[in-house]
Amino acid sequence: MKQVRIGLLGFGTVGGGTATILNQTLKTIERRLNGQITLKIEQVAVRDLSLSREADVDKLSFTDSAMEVVENPQVDIVVELMGGTTIAKQCIERAIELGKPVVTANKALIAEQGNQLFKLAEQKAVPIAYEAAVAGGIPIIKALREGLSANQIEWVAGIINGTGNYILTEMKKPGADFSEVLKTAQALGYAEADPTFDVEGIDAAHKLTIMASIAFGIPLQFEKVYTEGISQVTAEDIQFAKQLGYEIKHLGIASRSDNGYSLRVHPTLIPDSVLIAQVNGVMNAVMVSGNHVGSTLYYGPGAGAGPTASAVVADIVDLVRGLHQPPDDRVPALGFGLDQLETASVIDIDAITTAFYLRFFVKDNAGVLAKVTSILARFNINIELLHQEPSNQNPDDATLVMITNAVPESDFNAAVRALESLDSIDGKIARIRVDALD
Amino acid sequence: MKQVRIGLLGFGTVGGGTATILNQTLKTIERRLNGQITLKIEQVAVRDLSLSREADVDKLSFTDSAMEVVENPQVDIVVELMGGTTIAKQCIERAIELGKPVVTANKALIAEQGNQLFKLAEQKAVPIAYEAAVAGGIPIIKALREGLSANQIEWVAGIINGTGNYILTEMKKPGADFSEVLKTAQALGYAEADPTFDVEGIDAAHKLTIMASIAFGIPLQFEKVYTEGISQVTAEDIQFAKQLGYEIKHLGIASRSDNGYSLRVHPTLIPDSVLIAQVNGVMNAVMVSGNHVGSTLYYGPGAGAGPTASAVVADIVDLVRGLHQPPDDRVPALGFGLDQLETASVIDIDAITTAFYLRFFVKDNAGVLAKVTSILARFNINIELLHQEPSNQNPDDATLVMITNAVPESDFNAAVRALESLDSIDGKIARIRVDALD
Repeated sequence: MKQVRIGLLGFGTVGGGTATILNQTLKTIERRLNGQITLKIEQVAVRDLSLSREADVDKLSFTDSAMEVVENPQVDIVVELMGGTTIAKQCIERAIELGKPVVTANKALIAEQGNQLFKLAEQKAVPIAYEAAVAGGIPIIKALREGLSANQIEWVAGIINGTGNYILTEMKKPGADFSEVLKTAQALGYAEADPTFDVEGIDAAHKLTIMASIAFGIPLQFEKVYTEGISQVTAEDIQFAKQLGYEIKHLGIASRSDNGYSLRVHPTLIPDSVLIAQVNGVMNAVMVSGNHVGSTLYYGPGAGAGPTASAVVADIVDLVRGLHQPPDDRVPALGFGLDQLETASVIDIDAITTAFYLRFFVKDNAGVLAKVTSILARFNINIELLHQEPSNQNPDDATLVMITNAVPESDFNAAVRALESLDSIDGKIARIRVDALD
Repeated sequence: MKQVRIGLLGFGTVGGGTATILNQTLKTIERRLNGQITLKIEQVAVRDLSLSREADVDKLSFTDSAMEVVENPQVDIVVELMGGTTIAKQCIERAIELGKPVVTANKALIAEQGNQLFKLAEQKAVPIAYEAAVAGGIPIIKALREGLSANQIEWVAGIINGTGNYILTEMKKPGADFSEVLKTAQALGYAEADPTFDVEGIDAAHKLTIMASIAFGIPLQFEKVYTEGISQVTAEDIQFAKQLGYEIKHLGIASRSDNGYSLRVHPTLIPDSVLIAQVNGVMNAVMVSGNHVGSTLYYGPGAGAGPTASAVVADIVDLVRGLHQPPDDRVPALGFGLDQLETASVIDIDAITTAFYLRFFVKDNAGVLAKVTSILARFNINIELLHQEPSNQNPDDATLVMITNAVPESDFNAAVRALESLDSIDGKIARIRVDALD
């Protein structure tokens, strides 16, 4: 049996998971490769050689130099699982120079510096695979680049950060609020000590950047993704949304329109009848709409050793199958040949048209609704759904909840400023975008 | 630009959809192929040349001889969308002899005669692609064969017949019953005049056969699939299931155990908290559980011109990319090399262990429950959930609904026979398998 030798850079959760798969499931993988090829971890780079490793990695050869692994002539494929965008990038560049296929799970690196890396890789005819960078175990990159290749993709909308989805799910329980749920998530290991990266949507923006690029055939443009986190979502909003027939999910949305592309990550009210509204806890899911296939959805665990390593090893198998394929015949890194990418104009968030959920507190209830509706009317905003309930402090005061029609965000902002200037509206207006996902 | 020429056999719904995609979305597809390859429909075989076709197919060249298309030296790839297992098979065999890659959407042909076809194709190093044969637009074959290749697949469970799912969904509405809903489905074109193929599970069994084979790496064994339709499911059962926290879905289930493989299609109670329980109407969805990735789900339209042709054209793109790949490096037709398939022992349905839902009507309520539970106890069957409600005819009579623990089907059958012999149980006992899908 021919041996393909893997150099692992990094041996944390995903690196360990990769070794576990190649320990436990190698026979099945060999059967998939016609019984003619086997995979072997040739060398592993770790940061600290003195740390103890689990028993079943005894036979692995460790070094603390990632570059040594890349340059090891016994290594055929380089698998980068270190994270970070400095050494990881240098290692991948060196692998490309040496003509070694690369697998990486590094979403930040691909989203922020993928354009250059893929250009270099194309010049050297070296494939870079990165299924594990988006939505962990869900083969969403493969679905977008290959499974739906007959389609012009119209939009993609995903729950692509498990931490955020766990928090929003837990906030549905009576009495839960954001900061308490975040603490629980941290205690359970679902959220980092510094949760910013997940909670403020940066991680989701990395993944959305990648999905948008391969969905539409546009360059990676992380810096143009509008990003809003979930820390402003309250349990009250989740309850009101539910009453109106919606769930609040933190979505990454990429869509195509005649004016350009929209790339955004923000909390979103979606109808509870849409399947993705029922995706709870740490699970991920991505909806993809194509011009011929219609709406499809891909669901699974978005993180963890087993799921993420499942994607890494699937990439390795793909690369092994493509070793003798003419480079031009391979699936291009971004799904479209680099010289086929469209110069994409990304629409500024102010120019995006969406429906909105609004919640605010009014003093002296009587007459306020007339003022509110006349301000909204001035900006051509219609109220599609309205819910009003008395304040539990004072029956004359009320909480008003409404869902508008789709309006340009700049108009909506102007209307909100006008509303907030009313004496009878107390405090800030809570506002969350609404998307029917149809 | 290099041209790859397609011979279409059949120009019904899917054939027409394929032409539509190549009319409307060819530019996007060319961009995916690095701008170096284009696709062209060279010739189309139809049954009746005198039938009028839509305007935008004017430029297509038609013939009424499928074999002429296969043998046309201008045709590079043969796309079989005729259906049937006789001429379709002959055409595919001839294409293989001529070394022409084949795409087919023919689930019956693959499920019933795929073993021979794939053997012939392997001898001639000709690829056969069949993504459209299972779950229409959902790229489930690709997910199973490639996306999850790092896993030993443990089980697959799918809603893989849209007609059946539409009927079960409509039966949730008050007052609906099977025969009326079936009539509506027929009027809407969701069900055939003779609905047997869909309603009795034969279509689902074809698709399950294919999924089981590529999930586990076992030969196609359509004849061993246990198949039970939905015509015995009543609206009452659907309501009772709901009360107990379940939905009734017509599932194709393939699972692996130490004793062998289980292949079955039957109505199934599944907890309503499992995402696939929320898949309604004509939509399809497949859950796949792998030993490393855990549970994943793939959802989308399972039929129709656009979705099915989306899968056909994606297969064509894949074949084009693989034209210069060494045959041994390609993804094997069944996901595993033919000489790597396991001799699979398929467990007889009597030996399968599952939980059951039971519903029956008892006369003279008092004392019956004791008799029922003692009979169940004799067969080591525990009642996990019990619901009893008075008959609307006679308060002494009652409907009993229960869910048991998992028991061997033969024991369960014996218990049901014993129960049915009780004087106080009136009529037949309704029984539906229960699966937690965990």
